[in-house]
Amino acid sequence: MADKKQNIEKELLSYLPQKDEWIGNLVSSMEYSLTAGGKRVRPMLVMEFARLCGGSEEAAMPFACALEMIHTYSLIHDDLPCMDNDDLRRGKPTNHKVYGEACALLAGSGLLTLAFEAASSGRAVELNGTEKCLQAVKVLAESAGAQGMLGGQIIDLESEGKQVSVDHLKVMDAKKTGALIIAAAKLGCISAGATEEQMKAAVCYAENIGLAFQIVDDMLDVTSSTEELGKPVGSDSENEKSTYAALLGIDACKQISEELTDRAVESLSVFENDTTTLRNFAYYLLKREN
Amino acid sequence: MADKKQNIEKELLSYLPQKDEWIGNLVSSMEYSLTAGGKRVRPMLVMEFARLCGGSEEAAMPFACALEMIHTYSLIHDDLPCMDNDDLRRGKPTNHKVYGEACALLAGSGLLTLAFEAASSGRAVELNGTEKCLQAVKVLAESAGAQGMLGGQIIDLESEGKQVSVDHLKVMDAKKTGALIIAAAKLGCISAGATEEQMKAAVCYAENIGLAFQIVDDMLDVTSSTEELGKPVGSDSENEKSTYAALLGIDACKQISEELTDRAVESLSVFENDTTTLRNFAYYLLKREN
Repeated sequence: MADKKQNIEKELLSYLPQKDEWIGNLVSSMEYSLTAGGKRVRPMLVMEFARLCGGSEEAAMPFACALEMIHTYSLIHDDLPCMDNDDLRRGKPTNHKVYGEACALLAGSGLLTLAFEAASSGRAVELNGTEKCLQAVKVLAESAGAQGMLGGQIIDLESEGKQVSVDHLKVMDAKKTGALIIAAAKLGCISAGATEEQMKAAVCYAENIGLAFQIVDDMLDVTSSTEELGKPVGSDSENEKSTYAALLGIDACKQISEELTDRAVESLSVFENDTTTLRNFAYYLLKREN
Repeated sequence: MADKKQNIEKELLSYLPQKDEWIGNLVSSMEYSLTAGGKRVRPMLVMEFARLCGGSEEAAMPFACALEMIHTYSLIHDDLPCMDNDDLRRGKPTNHKVYGEACALLAGSGLLTLAFEAASSGRAVELNGTEKCLQAVKVLAESAGAQGMLGGQIIDLESEGKQVSVDHLKVMDAKKTGALIIAAAKLGCISAGATEEQMKAAVCYAENIGLAFQIVDDMLDVTSSTEELGKPVGSDSENEKSTYAALLGIDACKQISEELTDRAVESLSVFENDTTTLRNFAYYLLKREN
């Protein structure tokens, strides 16, 4: 898995333009966040589903990178003063703390735009053909847009300081974090030319680990330390945010996230290829400490 | 031309998602800026070049809308407090003045993302085929990205308060405003399946009116009134911005913008179809008062 992560990180950078005298700082700022670490959950899923459906990881890689760029853009913009106003991300100063707000704004938009360059790049077309690349563009745009991730972010904004229900949180998270994780499953399937049954199972896996992921995130904000997490803990309760942890308690959260993970793993039964990696991945996300 | 504008404005809105209880404010905020007027220069160019190269305006429309969405997103983000901090745009309060900074940030990103949905939409594919849609995605992403418009914006930011040369302004504007105008020409040609010679002439036209457009913009900031312009005049000199008007003087600017317009019009000679509209359009942009 470490090898794959390294491959992803190498290819991610390959899409960045040259740092010339004109746009050098913008490109550096984009690179700063692209290389700031992270678990690379989404690109890993893209490539693993591609493999599972009989495709190649190499072919899925441009789509995997595109999705990670979109995820990274969302983190940069999320951290901005007008959003969460965070100073730390993965233990490092946030993009705007290093490059200033204006540059961070542009860098985020730059990565969102670069995602579509990657998905329509010569490399992507050579490995996947035009049809699949355009399907990938469509999935990327829909999952990142107002009905997907951005929709989740506006719900999140409008929920600030309000007590909301668990069902409300579920709708929000299905968009805010779920949409990109489901996109990961779909992109892998698209690259591999998966059957409808495989696509359905992949989306089911993604939906379940997506929600589990968010519930675990909420728990970590309560149970982890700032050092482990790479960002301040307790920020949710400090911001009076409704979370699964606050609404249901840690024990129920543990149980639900385990059930969701089991359900995700069960959905893998339709695949003929070895599903060990995705099974382990689901449990790794459940047991992670940051 | 008024008819065409109306068609564009109607189709632009057709790509917006439903305003449901969850994402209603985000969609309203996107709609607010999409319907805030403007000359619709870029979509008009897309459709006119499509027609000129033997294509249909209808087929070019999804690409025209995509480009206008990208232009609109750039205005929303440009007006944000961390960028130009403008309160007025086309005589109306800017997006963040109405919806707040966070929502405006998301609405801008939402429009950028929606552009790629439009270019990969069922409608776009039905009218243009997969190949041309993917080419359009590529042109949109490259022209809006770090090597295009965003690159121009970072140059602009880094030039603030500095005295820069006319050549510096030209590099900046070729990216900041030129890239999307050139994209307009290319998108029209792509939709129509233009020849290489046609594409070259279209890009030449776009480059020349693009620069002329910017020079006229600078002049209007000096010579127009706030009422005519729909935004405060004199803001460039107030912000100590280097402009063509400041560096070259109004008379030289007039002459250069006329020469550029003539050159643009000359490049139309390769087209067999009637070029009256594009000729008039170039002179309209030159003579405009806002």
